[in-house]
Amino acid sequence: MSKKASIGVTGLAVMGRNLARNLARHGHTVALHNRSEERTRALVDQFGDEGDFIPAYSAQEFVDALERPRQVVIMVKAGAPTDAVIDEFAPLLEPGDVIVDAGNAHFADTRRREAALREQGLHFVGTGVSGGEEGALHGPSIMPGGSPESYQSLGPLFEDISAKVDGSPCCTHVGADGAGHFVKMVHNGIEYADMQLIAESFDLLRGAAGYSPAEIAEVFRTWNTGRLDSYLIEITADVLAHVDASTGKPFVDIVADQAEQKGTGRWTVQIGLDLGVPISGIAEAVFARSLSGSSELRSAARDLGGPTRAPLADVSGFADKVEQALYASKVVAYAQGFNQIQAGGAEYGWDIDLGRVAAIWRGGCIIRAKFLNDITSAYEAEPGLPTLLTSGGFRKAVEEAQDAWRSVISTAVSLGIPTPGFSTALAYYDGLRADRLPAALVQGQRDFFGAHTYRRVDREGSFHTAWAEPGRPEVSA
Amino acid sequence: MSKKASIGVTGLAVMGRNLARNLARHGHTVALHNRSEERTRALVDQFGDEGDFIPAYSAQEFVDALERPRQVVIMVKAGAPTDAVIDEFAPLLEPGDVIVDAGNAHFADTRRREAALREQGLHFVGTGVSGGEEGALHGPSIMPGGSPESYQSLGPLFEDISAKVDGSPCCTHVGADGAGHFVKMVHNGIEYADMQLIAESFDLLRGAAGYSPAEIAEVFRTWNTGRLDSYLIEITADVLAHVDASTGKPFVDIVADQAEQKGTGRWTVQIGLDLGVPISGIAEAVFARSLSGSSELRSAARDLGGPTRAPLADVSGFADKVEQALYASKVVAYAQGFNQIQAGGAEYGWDIDLGRVAAIWRGGCIIRAKFLNDITSAYEAEPGLPTLLTSGGFRKAVEEAQDAWRSVISTAVSLGIPTPGFSTALAYYDGLRADRLPAALVQGQRDFFGAHTYRRVDREGSFHTAWAEPGRPEVSA
Repeated sequence: MSKKASIGVTGLAVMGRNLARNLARHGHTVALHNRSEERTRALVDQFGDEGDFIPAYSAQEFVDALERPRQVVIMVKAGAPTDAVIDEFAPLLEPGDVIVDAGNAHFADTRRREAALREQGLHFVGTGVSGGEEGALHGPSIMPGGSPESYQSLGPLFEDISAKVDGSPCCTHVGADGAGHFVKMVHNGIEYADMQLIAESFDLLRGAAGYSPAEIAEVFRTWNTGRLDSYLIEITADVLAHVDASTGKPFVDIVADQAEQKGTGRWTVQIGLDLGVPISGIAEAVFARSLSGSSELRSAARDLGGPTRAPLADVSGFADKVEQALYASKVVAYAQGFNQIQAGGAEYGWDIDLGRVAAIWRGGCIIRAKFLNDITSAYEAEPGLPTLLTSGGFRKAVEEAQDAWRSVISTAVSLGIPTPGFSTALAYYDGLRADRLPAALVQGQRDFFGAHTYRRVDREGSFHTAWAEPGRPEVSA
Repeated sequence: MSKKASIGVTGLAVMGRNLARNLARHGHTVALHNRSEERTRALVDQFGDEGDFIPAYSAQEFVDALERPRQVVIMVKAGAPTDAVIDEFAPLLEPGDVIVDAGNAHFADTRRREAALREQGLHFVGTGVSGGEEGALHGPSIMPGGSPESYQSLGPLFEDISAKVDGSPCCTHVGADGAGHFVKMVHNGIEYADMQLIAESFDLLRGAAGYSPAEIAEVFRTWNTGRLDSYLIEITADVLAHVDASTGKPFVDIVADQAEQKGTGRWTVQIGLDLGVPISGIAEAVFARSLSGSSELRSAARDLGGPTRAPLADVSGFADKVEQALYASKVVAYAQGFNQIQAGGAEYGWDIDLGRVAAIWRGGCIIRAKFLNDITSAYEAEPGLPTLLTSGGFRKAVEEAQDAWRSVISTAVSLGIPTPGFSTALAYYDGLRADRLPAALVQGQRDFFGAHTYRRVDREGSFHTAWAEPGRPEVSA
């Protein structure tokens, strides 16, 4: 009998193809399958010399090519196509086998599928895979959920092909059922927030300091040698330095200023709302993209009155202040995102190690950054940390940055440069700091118009004031 | 045969009871039904002399008591209880009869139910009813969806019992199927935003001007004589003026500063995200409530460094500036909410008259305000208005208010007073005004790391830059 494959990949569009090649390049024998045969043949034709592939042209042939426990990685579109492929393969598998969904499923779908397949004795692993096409080929950040048993067989393979930072694989068992896809979703939400904050920094350096894109590229390059060192800052410098060949203009000036989105940022906010976690940084980033794309609205409103952008008289030190504002806002955005993971873990019974999540995001994925080392250290030092903002290093850095942060927002406000991300981050910081919030007034209003009751600061219980009665007596509710 | 009822109410908790009494007080004969008989008997015992009631102690008896077309108003908890009552009554009804859900259903559930009952020849009307218990009894704002035919019989009754403003009923046929519940949902979202903005105003007057709650109550009373004249401003003054009897302290200081929520604000934001409408004002209000309720987080973070609140050296004119900031932010919040209704209408095929929606919110509901007259006028003058901000009166008022608006936010930022609502409103305003948004950079980043392509400002099509290749050539995508 011929050699069997240790893993199989079905769905050989670019992401699936690159994952399969990555596995083969690491010495694993990979069974290949695709709905149409062409992609399977093309992979073997073009990349067959990269390792051991076993092409299969039917589901049964594919399953038969796999060692036990069989590990079937599905890399197809989220939603109905994923269900269709699961329905095709599940009946061919045996108890103990593992089905992996490496696509961008909503974690609620993953939970549903995991429960259904568990009934059949199958392990279902929803895994986040971050890093795009290049990451899939050269080393992504991998976030598998599912049962601990499934990770025993799958983990070594995934750790093998993942990105490495300081020798450690960017892959860990995140938690049960949908935990992997949940964490990948929040990763993407944080990515939205981070990109928005970078965009606001650019807008400020342009509008308030009067720098050209090329000059701003240099500013970002400098930042990339410090605490902001990250993939996103690096590519921002590259994008800003790029000159459009056909016009000779800065590339960023010829790109339509309407940001698109694929949905995971939106999901993150929607789930954050369900969990009751304030993730305003991600929300403002999603709304900023929606606003940018509202072309009819923007053309109608473009002539609304307001300040004209004019560079500050003295721009010395301004870029440094923006760096501080960006850093502080970024800490807030990540603090919110990690709190969402914590809340999701509590809600769904996942035992998620937040420090490990930060650690596996250090390489392979879009938000990879040195900064994540500090997050790992923060959670290692204090696993139950209520917010990154109170962790020693971040607390000190943000406290030191805040004068500049406040100053930059005031500048933006007076010049009419929109900074929804910076502003919401500061409002969150000041909201957390507040000894008393005006939410007390909101509770009073709610009790007034809807008899919703309130609690008191000085004794236990729920109370209602009979607002319409003389003397407005208070009653226990 | 005895007299029949023109309408029936099933579910006689306080809201259903008050709606039934309101109908009877207006001379309509009302059939009554409740799962347990006690409530039916109690209503007749206590309020039987207010009008003509026909108590019924079985579903069949209830249905038999109704004139054709029968109109059955259900006022029970949203979700499964509503479905259960529908399932109980639908089989007893005949084609042309009308079932009304007057509870707080999600509009998607209403759409589902409407479609199912339409199959059976029944009209299903999901209606928003705003104004709480008192409103239900004395005149609520009523927002019925459903078929135009259903409104022919139901409309006169509902208009009769609704609040009246300048003689006009605060009730209109909003649109097909779920339109009524959708509009009610957005009403509640706007209510969240409005309350948050009022709360921020209070916090600023306290923290930056050093006024006492009693002094601030007077400020709100003054505002209530001007363009901010509204129910919420009025009750805010009442709440702030109230002194707690047991401590002698201002009431607002003894209320726990943790605002609660029942879910419609959250729904509004979640649906706004699905529709791609930036409704950041509502989102920040929801998040501010979540933040206020995050007690563990707040106690951990309370000692984070930042400015100490100290009243401004010169507070003259500050309250007026806050009024301008509040007004401008409120216009933005309403503009966003009305745009969400517009987008919902487009998505679900409802022909919603936005001016009429504003008109029926002028009385009966929580956000009732003179301000809504201006919104009605704005949409009457220009039915396709892309945003309230570009309507003549609002444009002028916000343009005039903006210097104060910017100044107040700068003050808040420097004193460490969180103003997420004011700040996001201004960021939205400046975002709409912007000639170019840094979303262009975001598109560049997305193309760099994910080959997501971009559009150009100078020619049609989608493009991708091959960032990894020498010279970074651009290709049509």
